[in-house]
Amino acid sequence: MKTPFVSAEKLRQIVAEYPTPFHLYDEAGLRANARRLHEAFSWNPGFKEYFAVKATPNPAILKILKEEGCGVDCSTLTELMLADAVGFAGEEIMFSANMTPLEDFLFAYKLGAIINLDDITDLEYFQYLPEVPKKVCLRYNPGGDFIISNEIMDSPAEAKYGMTKSQLFEAVKQLQEWGVLEFGLHAFLTSNTLTQEYYPTLAKMLFEVTVELAQETGAHFDFVNLSGGIGVPYRPGEKPVDIKRIGAAVEKAFAQVLIPAGMGDLAVVAELGRYMLAPYGHLVATAIREKRIYKHYIGLDANAANLLRPAMYGAYHHITVAGKEKAPHTHVYDITGGLCENNDKFAVDRRLPPIEIGDLIIIHDTGAHGFSMGYNYNGKLRSAEILLKEDGSTELIRRAETPADYFATLDLKVESRA
Amino acid sequence: MKTPFVSAEKLRQIVAEYPTPFHLYDEAGLRANARRLHEAFSWNPGFKEYFAVKATPNPAILKILKEEGCGVDCSTLTELMLADAVGFAGEEIMFSANMTPLEDFLFAYKLGAIINLDDITDLEYFQYLPEVPKKVCLRYNPGGDFIISNEIMDSPAEAKYGMTKSQLFEAVKQLQEWGVLEFGLHAFLTSNTLTQEYYPTLAKMLFEVTVELAQETGAHFDFVNLSGGIGVPYRPGEKPVDIKRIGAAVEKAFAQVLIPAGMGDLAVVAELGRYMLAPYGHLVATAIREKRIYKHYIGLDANAANLLRPAMYGAYHHITVAGKEKAPHTHVYDITGGLCENNDKFAVDRRLPPIEIGDLIIIHDTGAHGFSMGYNYNGKLRSAEILLKEDGSTELIRRAETPADYFATLDLKVESRA
Repeated sequence: MKTPFVSAEKLRQIVAEYPTPFHLYDEAGLRANARRLHEAFSWNPGFKEYFAVKATPNPAILKILKEEGCGVDCSTLTELMLADAVGFAGEEIMFSANMTPLEDFLFAYKLGAIINLDDITDLEYFQYLPEVPKKVCLRYNPGGDFIISNEIMDSPAEAKYGMTKSQLFEAVKQLQEWGVLEFGLHAFLTSNTLTQEYYPTLAKMLFEVTVELAQETGAHFDFVNLSGGIGVPYRPGEKPVDIKRIGAAVEKAFAQVLIPAGMGDLAVVAELGRYMLAPYGHLVATAIREKRIYKHYIGLDANAANLLRPAMYGAYHHITVAGKEKAPHTHVYDITGGLCENNDKFAVDRRLPPIEIGDLIIIHDTGAHGFSMGYNYNGKLRSAEILLKEDGSTELIRRAETPADYFATLDLKVESRA
Repeated sequence: MKTPFVSAEKLRQIVAEYPTPFHLYDEAGLRANARRLHEAFSWNPGFKEYFAVKATPNPAILKILKEEGCGVDCSTLTELMLADAVGFAGEEIMFSANMTPLEDFLFAYKLGAIINLDDITDLEYFQYLPEVPKKVCLRYNPGGDFIISNEIMDSPAEAKYGMTKSQLFEAVKQLQEWGVLEFGLHAFLTSNTLTQEYYPTLAKMLFEVTVELAQETGAHFDFVNLSGGIGVPYRPGEKPVDIKRIGAAVEKAFAQVLIPAGMGDLAVVAELGRYMLAPYGHLVATAIREKRIYKHYIGLDANAANLLRPAMYGAYHHITVAGKEKAPHTHVYDITGGLCENNDKFAVDRRLPPIEIGDLIIIHDTGAHGFSMGYNYNGKLRSAEILLKEDGSTELIRRAETPADYFATLDLKVESRA
């Protein structure tokens, strides 16, 4: 059974202050989770989590993660600007972009970020830099299929990211000539997996390539970047990963591959987004319409503009009716938004307790790729974000969009509806 | 062969003034298309096209369509505000929403829009109105599957829109009691189809239900609303619909069903979006990166933030390399954006002429559901929109977003990159 991190009573207090819909984040939960991650990798003194900003680009969330010792993984100019505004600097920032415009690259350099080169052609950017950075990360794409226990997890050969192995060698040699002193190696091979074996398998592969690169080129490797990919249990039956066991299994690979190679000083770093935040966000909406035609619908004041994953991927998000957590699930509903798109459904044929107009509907696991993927299709506005703090108080950490925001790029006098 | 509406030379002039990426719209093309539509339905004196604003919510485009005699189909408060700002009023506006919030409904009433009731429960809104509107439209959902020539086009029973037939009768009777004098009937049964038979089949069905409703209730029906659904040939091999033939086939159904019933004064109206605008928009981007790993990639300065359809639906959009319109297609590329998502690809395994860095890339048929579906995922900014006028001059009809727009809902001091 999946339970919300907020009680119905507390939620009603919050809604009295902030109108629905909004994304609500659980400070206590996300801090505890960050600590579990750090504990799981505490065997590695250099361990650092670079939170994937795209998952939840909110400064209040980034500040909390900074307090928990995290850095940030940015991929665009605006994400770098956000990280900078929150106070991240230098090697607290990893810049992992692809098809990167020059200006983004230059701003990353200006902030002192660790640049994670996606492609061999990215080397040409070095001619525009005042000086060569001391440390550079390289992104590896092994090609083919990525297989764990005979199951194809994903097909790196189809992914636009990273370099081939021979390009890695070429890049390291060139960068050494230009004066780069330290290197990192990165790969991202699958997304949102609950397989315990993903990180250890990826780590072992990256450790081996790192040893090979170091031995052949004489380059000093400072870290291996395991990227993101660890998933969360969106569905009630799914088992969350055991991060402690994952940390221990990565440690085992480390001991097998790196220590014998004399590379036991290597840091392991991560770029988790979903794992860090998804379960610690709820999209809170109000049931505003009930409709009975060929199916039984509940219409919410939230829609795909607030959470695109169900419309885009058919993704499952668990739903709780606040105050009816223990009521029998006697009704089958489609839970929909009011966008003029039939894919604007948060749930199809979902068994739930009877819902009345005015009920508060909690959509789970929206802490990552929730608000951040929101769009303005159909003129729908993006919602507020609210932080539920450890002391039980709340803080508005992003205001809801207004029509004025929606019309901001137009030269237009819009009459107020008032 | 699909050809752009703009020459490479003209495009280079435009790009000298406005940096890529941007959506470019072809005034001459969209005016000619609107005229073709009106000509095809000129047999019906009351014919009106209510352009679906969600397809292209830009005031300059709406103004052109207004000059061509079109009204607007709105579904949200902001779309109504936009229509109002452009000068649409009263029955020039159709309000077709679902799971509608009360405030949207009230604003539609205030503007004098024709309200297209999606559900029987929408009737409860009438208690909040100063007076009952004279004219109301009802949205019909026939349930089951929608079949043309033994092919299932779509499954209305799975769609959240509209009322059952018995609810239509119930609604008409209630509205008559409340003093509504004129009615319209609407249904939307499939999307983006090139089948010539769609509109005529839908029209015949709606005409028959209208006669049935009118005869049973004595209500006066003023119009039938054929909604949207007519598609455009995204792929080079696809044949565009022959709108003249469609108009004639609807006329035939009109003559068969409505004239014998003494309802020859009925107006036929449409809510086309894609058909009106899609081919008259191009997303213009620059090739900024070339990458060779297991596949051959061209990276653009545009990405899914500018055009979500390929990422969301795997939709095909044709691509022309400006200036190489007649060059042999000797290369196979993935054409990608720089979002940190592997689905951010405008084309996969697409045969094209050789592309060099700096080449202008034209992505076709983005005039509808292009800019309007844009999002800010990964902190990517939405582009400008530019109108290519009939006289060959250009006008910036929406400025590109800046980082300040992206951060507008946050209380944050962001250092300029300058």
